[in-house]
Amino acid sequence: MKLDEVKAAMAEVNRLFNEDVVGKRNMAALDNVYTADARILPPGGPMVAGREAIKQFWAGMIQGVNARSAELFSVDVMPSGDDLVEIGRALLTVETEPGATAQMEGKYVVYWRQEDGQWKWHVDIWNMNS
Amino acid sequence: MKLDEVKAAMAEVNRLFNEDVVGKRNMAALDNVYTADARILPPGGPMVAGREAIKQFWAGMIQGVNARSAELFSVDVMPSGDDLVEIGRALLTVETEPGATAQMEGKYVVYWRQEDGQWKWHVDIWNMNS
Repeated sequence: MKLDEVKAAMAEVNRLFNEDVVGKRNMAALDNVYTADARILPPGGPMVAGREAIKQFWAGMIQGVNARSAELFSVDVMPSGDDLVEIGRALLTVETEPGATAQMEGKYVVYWRQEDGQWKWHVDIWNMNS
Repeated sequence: MKLDEVKAAMAEVNRLFNEDVVGKRNMAALDNVYTADARILPPGGPMVAGREAIKQFWAGMIQGVNARSAELFSVDVMPSGDDLVEIGRALLTVETEPGATAQMEGKYVVYWRQEDGQWKWHVDIWNMNS
């Protein structure tokens, strides 16, 4: 698989997270984002292990901050054996009150692996820029 | 190189960061911690690229919070081609006033690469647990 094709597949997963998971609050779409034994390391809390626990985390977080979108931009993609390491920038939009939104910028590192031929997030850690 | 040997080399780098960089405030020791073109993604600020800029960052941060130690514990080490991805736990001790310290717990992901035969941090991102 060429790196261009891999990057296109990654962009599709990142789009899915933004539009389906955050935008439509469809947690089932996380099956196509995270590996079954993925781990996330969120700021302000402990590590969360396993896709089912990760679904619970995102369901609570997205509702808790009333997130509307989470745009993900790849800054660098580093192939590493059969896997990939991505550095990215995240632009989070939350609805602070009806009709009013605020934006926050964050950054992340995702360790990507293939699961059943599909590129997915295996380790996901992020923090906010301010 | 066997994984046990790699893990021992990693533990030595992590010890160096804690004891020499933070404990002794010896920023030159970062030459043996980060690759020349490493990137760090600290909470509350933008990404920092390149070992020289990283030295400036840590010099300011360690002095700013009056850090005394930063113990690093590997939680998982995932070989990936010629490289490694590490999930870890960090225990930070800061001196809040003369003779008084406070501890904070964080977690991190480091993407390790070999540079001139030495294992080093190539991408380093972390956040605090509370």
